[in-house]
Amino acid sequence: MTLTILGCHAATPKTFHNPTSQLLDVRGQLFLIDCGEGTQVALRKSKVKFARVKHIFISHLHGDHFYGLIGLISTFTLLGREADLHIYGPKGIKEIITLQLKLGKAWTNYNLIFHELETKSSQLILEDDKVEVYTIPLKHRVYTNGFLFKEKPGERKLNIEAAVAAKIDNSYFRKLKAGADVPNLEGKLIPNEKVTFPPDPSKSYAFCSDTFYNPEIVPLIEKVSLLYHEATFLEEHKHLCEKTKHSTAKEAAMIAKEAGVKRLVLGHFSTRYSDLNLFLEEAKTVFENTELAEDYKVFEI
Amino acid sequence: MTLTILGCHAATPKTFHNPTSQLLDVRGQLFLIDCGEGTQVALRKSKVKFARVKHIFISHLHGDHFYGLIGLISTFTLLGREADLHIYGPKGIKEIITLQLKLGKAWTNYNLIFHELETKSSQLILEDDKVEVYTIPLKHRVYTNGFLFKEKPGERKLNIEAAVAAKIDNSYFRKLKAGADVPNLEGKLIPNEKVTFPPDPSKSYAFCSDTFYNPEIVPLIEKVSLLYHEATFLEEHKHLCEKTKHSTAKEAAMIAKEAGVKRLVLGHFSTRYSDLNLFLEEAKTVFENTELAEDYKVFEI
Repeated sequence: MTLTILGCHAATPKTFHNPTSQLLDVRGQLFLIDCGEGTQVALRKSKVKFARVKHIFISHLHGDHFYGLIGLISTFTLLGREADLHIYGPKGIKEIITLQLKLGKAWTNYNLIFHELETKSSQLILEDDKVEVYTIPLKHRVYTNGFLFKEKPGERKLNIEAAVAAKIDNSYFRKLKAGADVPNLEGKLIPNEKVTFPPDPSKSYAFCSDTFYNPEIVPLIEKVSLLYHEATFLEEHKHLCEKTKHSTAKEAAMIAKEAGVKRLVLGHFSTRYSDLNLFLEEAKTVFENTELAEDYKVFEI
Repeated sequence: MTLTILGCHAATPKTFHNPTSQLLDVRGQLFLIDCGEGTQVALRKSKVKFARVKHIFISHLHGDHFYGLIGLISTFTLLGREADLHIYGPKGIKEIITLQLKLGKAWTNYNLIFHELETKSSQLILEDDKVEVYTIPLKHRVYTNGFLFKEKPGERKLNIEAAVAAKIDNSYFRKLKAGADVPNLEGKLIPNEKVTFPPDPSKSYAFCSDTFYNPEIVPLIEKVSLLYHEATFLEEHKHLCEKTKHSTAKEAAMIAKEAGVKRLVLGHFSTRYSDLNLFLEEAKTVFENTELAEDYKVFEI
């Protein structure tokens, strides 16, 4: 899993500040998470082959998280896209996009498939052979979901020496990797775990933005490999969180600690702060393994 | 009048190519013309005090001309705008903007006043003490207007020596500038033109994008100080104009010549061309006083 931050700033796009968007690569499959204005330009700048994106997840209908979506959809048309595009987001997103395509007489040449979200409890919204994606219900001023990406376990790894010693024909190796017990050349059934190693541990990524401090999400994101959690404010401006439904750096770290995640990445910084290291310092008082998001920064998970 | 090109490229925004947007300054009053994705960032980069914009004109509902509008409207809210904002554009633009504000629960704190356009003949859509703005009906794949900005005549200039010689009290100077005949100290009525000079000639600017070659606009834009006309293609790709309803550089120059305009600026270049000087060369074979638009270039009119 590789996470590319395309934008990590709150509110309005600026010359060197992109609003929220991220690209998650899970074994070659690209998922776009949120799509603030200018995301298509950020994708070009990051040299990603973004035509390969097949699934876009929109957390909520505030501009800094989705105003770039209609432009990206239109650009896909101009680039001659033929592959289906799946869009997951709050109810209403389909109407916003289709109204603009209709009035511009600019229907896409590819299938645009909307998965509108309404439920207030976590649900599995996408599953294929590599990954499962769940919603993470967040508390914000409008209906908002985070997203949890869980890699499915990979194949077991062959212990070649043990398999040869056990006299297993190599035509059975694929079955062994899939976890099956197989017969050897003498007709004896060999237990899988005697001739294979377990797969690499599965990775997981949780995206939580925008949200008020919400410990209810802890069970959903327990022990994830990487948690991105919004940190719009510092504790000194905690009074702004109640009204705006955002979190402080310390609160993000508390969630990370309670959930026992491996790494925490902070983002969605308010433009009122010029020194973002203050976010890092504040969070580290609670959860040491914290990093800051940065536009175009890449995190290997 | 000063024209700042914020973006002059067709289709999709790219790292160094902004879609259509322009800022026209008429004696300190700022008019925004079209608003492709990323316009608010281009406004910041050009160091304009863009909060002063009170009127936004949208030519048509294709993405490269208006996808940046909703973001700019939201940013004005975040910046604490209180002044009314007038938006002129095709019918449907109000529904697109208000739907997004409604679903994001993000109503503006200022008045957003839509002037939806439907007529197919030129009409006066804005008039104040400095300027008149008319639509220029264009021929494109969707309902499209260009816009003509005509400065109103300024004040007449006082011929101080002549006024003193004619024994006019200086309390009458304001009336003289306004064009009135006034009595002198001896009670004799002095004709205005004997003691004033004519005002500077009024400037005018015509914005014509996007459009198929359309000589019907010639009478509307006759003798304008500056004509911006789209030139999406070169003559070698003229066959693409019929389908896409765009113009070639030569056709733009033909319009400029027929209308007897003073200067022509070409823009809306297709991304298929790497050498834009070919547009200049082609246009100059028909109309010599041609220039190329360029993102962030400023034209004094």
